[in-house]
Amino acid sequence: MGFDWSLPFGGLGGSIGEPDAAPVHSITLFVALLLTCILIGHLLEKSRWMNESITALVIGVVTGILILVTTGGKSSRILIFDEEIFFIYLLPPIIFNAGFQVKKKQFFRNFMTITLFGAVGTLISFVIIFLGSRKLFSILGIDFLDTMDFLALGAIFSATDSVCTLQVLSQEDTPLLYSLVFGEGVVNDATSVVLFNAIQRFDLSHITSSIALQLLGSFLYLFFTSTLLGIAIGLLSAYIIKKLYFGRHSTDREVSLMMLMAYLSYVMAELFDLSGILTVFFCGIVMSHYTWHNVTESSRVTTKHAFAALSFISEIFIFLYVGMDALDIEKWRIVAKSPATSAGVSSVMLGMVLLGRAASVFPLSFISNLFKKSDNDKIQFKEQIIIWWAGLIRGAVSMALAYNQFTRAGYTQLQGNAFMITSTITIVLFSTVVFGLATKPLIRWLLPGHTARSSELEDDAKALSLPLLGISQDPGAETSTDNIQRPVSLRMLLTKPTNTVHYYWRKFDDGFMRPVFGGRGFTPFVPGSPIERSLHGGK
Amino acid sequence: MGFDWSLPFGGLGGSIGEPDAAPVHSITLFVALLLTCILIGHLLEKSRWMNESITALVIGVVTGILILVTTGGKSSRILIFDEEIFFIYLLPPIIFNAGFQVKKKQFFRNFMTITLFGAVGTLISFVIIFLGSRKLFSILGIDFLDTMDFLALGAIFSATDSVCTLQVLSQEDTPLLYSLVFGEGVVNDATSVVLFNAIQRFDLSHITSSIALQLLGSFLYLFFTSTLLGIAIGLLSAYIIKKLYFGRHSTDREVSLMMLMAYLSYVMAELFDLSGILTVFFCGIVMSHYTWHNVTESSRVTTKHAFAALSFISEIFIFLYVGMDALDIEKWRIVAKSPATSAGVSSVMLGMVLLGRAASVFPLSFISNLFKKSDNDKIQFKEQIIIWWAGLIRGAVSMALAYNQFTRAGYTQLQGNAFMITSTITIVLFSTVVFGLATKPLIRWLLPGHTARSSELEDDAKALSLPLLGISQDPGAETSTDNIQRPVSLRMLLTKPTNTVHYYWRKFDDGFMRPVFGGRGFTPFVPGSPIERSLHGGK
Repeated sequence: MGFDWSLPFGGLGGSIGEPDAAPVHSITLFVALLLTCILIGHLLEKSRWMNESITALVIGVVTGILILVTTGGKSSRILIFDEEIFFIYLLPPIIFNAGFQVKKKQFFRNFMTITLFGAVGTLISFVIIFLGSRKLFSILGIDFLDTMDFLALGAIFSATDSVCTLQVLSQEDTPLLYSLVFGEGVVNDATSVVLFNAIQRFDLSHITSSIALQLLGSFLYLFFTSTLLGIAIGLLSAYIIKKLYFGRHSTDREVSLMMLMAYLSYVMAELFDLSGILTVFFCGIVMSHYTWHNVTESSRVTTKHAFAALSFISEIFIFLYVGMDALDIEKWRIVAKSPATSAGVSSVMLGMVLLGRAASVFPLSFISNLFKKSDNDKIQFKEQIIIWWAGLIRGAVSMALAYNQFTRAGYTQLQGNAFMITSTITIVLFSTVVFGLATKPLIRWLLPGHTARSSELEDDAKALSLPLLGISQDPGAETSTDNIQRPVSLRMLLTKPTNTVHYYWRKFDDGFMRPVFGGRGFTPFVPGSPIERSLHGGK
Repeated sequence: MGFDWSLPFGGLGGSIGEPDAAPVHSITLFVALLLTCILIGHLLEKSRWMNESITALVIGVVTGILILVTTGGKSSRILIFDEEIFFIYLLPPIIFNAGFQVKKKQFFRNFMTITLFGAVGTLISFVIIFLGSRKLFSILGIDFLDTMDFLALGAIFSATDSVCTLQVLSQEDTPLLYSLVFGEGVVNDATSVVLFNAIQRFDLSHITSSIALQLLGSFLYLFFTSTLLGIAIGLLSAYIIKKLYFGRHSTDREVSLMMLMAYLSYVMAELFDLSGILTVFFCGIVMSHYTWHNVTESSRVTTKHAFAALSFISEIFIFLYVGMDALDIEKWRIVAKSPATSAGVSSVMLGMVLLGRAASVFPLSFISNLFKKSDNDKIQFKEQIIIWWAGLIRGAVSMALAYNQFTRAGYTQLQGNAFMITSTITIVLFSTVVFGLATKPLIRWLLPGHTARSSELEDDAKALSLPLLGISQDPGAETSTDNIQRPVSLRMLLTKPTNTVHYYWRKFDDGFMRPVFGGRGFTPFVPGSPIERSLHGGK
């Protein structure tokens, strides 16, 4: 069971131990760069184009160049991209926070569409990228990849970047698009990871119907068990806090408990070979629906903003990281010998990404629209274009999968591997910068005035005018919409099947879940207003 | 500049990469144990004896035993103690939070006494432990240590555990003792680290007056530059937030900025070979005095509780870690061959710790009392006993320094080294459990009714009755005491020199510092009450 707890930043120099101060150098530089990104991101906030992700990517690349110049072309990075840091430390807070802050009503209203895009769409995209790249590479005369590599490419480039999507789409301005694209991103990440693992485990070079069935079964098993695990841990946290903390609150313990339970859901999922991304996402949703209502006023404010801040830091960290690693000179040297091939590989892959996503978004939107009766609920063509476009961004998940497939311990000596890594980097940089920058203008052009759904805009306006904004309401800002929507739900019940589900869920939630696990209106120990509450209940 | 970013928990098993799931196992187990400690700590809260530190230590030891049994005596730990994790990741949040939440008035009123105890006291303790252990070990016939080792022992066992002290002394019940013992602990940690580094750098086997002067110079240089760096970064954060965020607040950015700046202060200090502990402590004090007042209401609540929660998790982590590592079988096997020697070493060291601290606390209290005119401000003998007793706890800093001196990469093969490591563990466990458990009863016995300082108790009572407790006031709870104490300060000005300093500082603070860096009463952009503020200013 023993293992060495070595440090992410290597040994500590400075005042303790050896005089080797390089790691402390690196941490200091990295923290300073993170701060720079936040400052610049803040100053550019009014800008129509930029956001922190792109700023971080650019700063990362610039720093890489500076290091390259100062070290005389020997090295461009202060760190080696490690997909494990990404998957164990950086991704969980981001995805958890997304679940914690997501507008649950929007998300569940579109749940079927999201799952369709996320699961079936990713599969379509995977098949097209696999077949297309194999065909085109053989035409181009690139022969260093085997079938397994092509399958891996399909999985790697099917992973939409949910992190960047969070930044280019606004939950307030375009709630439908946000919940569709982001929700899809989460399911899609999970699907890609499942596919990728399946490729590494099964022998997929000869696909038979039995293997296809096994794959489907494995996916369904993973999807449901991961979701259930997340829900179970979320409910457990709600129950523990409701039962044990009854009447005698301690804010710091509550906050610690929520943080640790959230992280526990992720590592447990990884331990059982499930999808940690799905688990921690649903854990976040359940925690915001139940646990969050059982804690003190101070804990609510703290968790809401602390989770957001940790997620924010992780996001910037990832982009800075990707930007800095992009310039690693070793792999570019190998590739530089045959620039035409390199450009060919990148172009083919980019084309396949565009094509694969088009082949999934437009047909699936058509199918999804068939099940919607009201025109107002259908995904309009212009919206489909935005969904297609925003989902083209490839990010850190693609990077991590590519490094996992094509490198050994961060090094890229083999020529074929160097090509694959560099074209992954090219596509990640290109798609993040170009598609990322152009999403906001595209939305303004296609949907002037953000007309999205007028009723939701009204809800948002109401939410904004509530007293104690961000304190008394749900982190997902659900409170205000509920009271208004309840009669609408009853009407919808007669016309739409998904709302019947929602109606029964609401009954079940009010009748059983909330009395047991707590939740809005079922926190039995503190009567009165939030202000009174913080007077009497605060630690 | 390149280095490998390996993981604290080794490779990630689970859904990505290799099937080796041991690290995920370990993380999951560790997170689950942390949660268990929080739950048990909560359930035992009403207990007079226990606290989370001791719970964590006990759970760590029990888990160690379980692992030892299940692996058939081969291994007792899921991790190897690494002083770098401790110094880079776990210690900074604890010390920063201590600075952030410390009652500044108490701290600065006793600043001279604290520095006296922390610097001179540690030096006395160091000399006594060094000389005493060398003498007694030669009598016992233990001959495997050289002068350098004895010097290192002096530094290692002079480090009071400020983390455990935080838990056994209450800032509310015994404010004077808390600020003296905890404040001393911070300075003392720094002194020990300085001494320890000096030992590893200088040739101290032949101490001359020139080396002693160099050492003194080095200590003074370190003390002042570290403090200045902390203050500078704290002020920078206040200035940035005040200037750039004027009128358009973003809570998540503010919280991220404060977190990163705090961490930056620590790593920068380490980078410049200063004392990160001192730097981050003073950065915390400055941030709570200026920066904290420049941010939104939500950010104040969030930072107050998020920093406390992170510190809380780190504390439990450390004790769990020490408890689990304590049972590592390898070093005990070596020691088990000569149990008498082992017991002798531990007893000698424990005796020296008791003696060394007595020789510093009682004489220095006497000296400190000479400078106090009012009897009410003098440190009474009973209080001196508590200061002596609570400061006997040796904790993670001692462990970290001992591992640094006596192991190579976490392994303890040499017999002499095994003895030193096991007796360090023995003393840490013994002092934490015995001295830690007995501190609260001792205080109740010596100071029935916590009479400490009646005026402060009144202030605390007033603070508790303030509206929006924990939201509208300073993290150090200074707000309420200030208004009441100001006339008292003027009176004191005539009798006591330290209060003259305080008076001029207040003038300087109000006249120059606060207008420039913000602070209570000088946040120019938000008029009105905290409630109005969160209405208009919240993100």
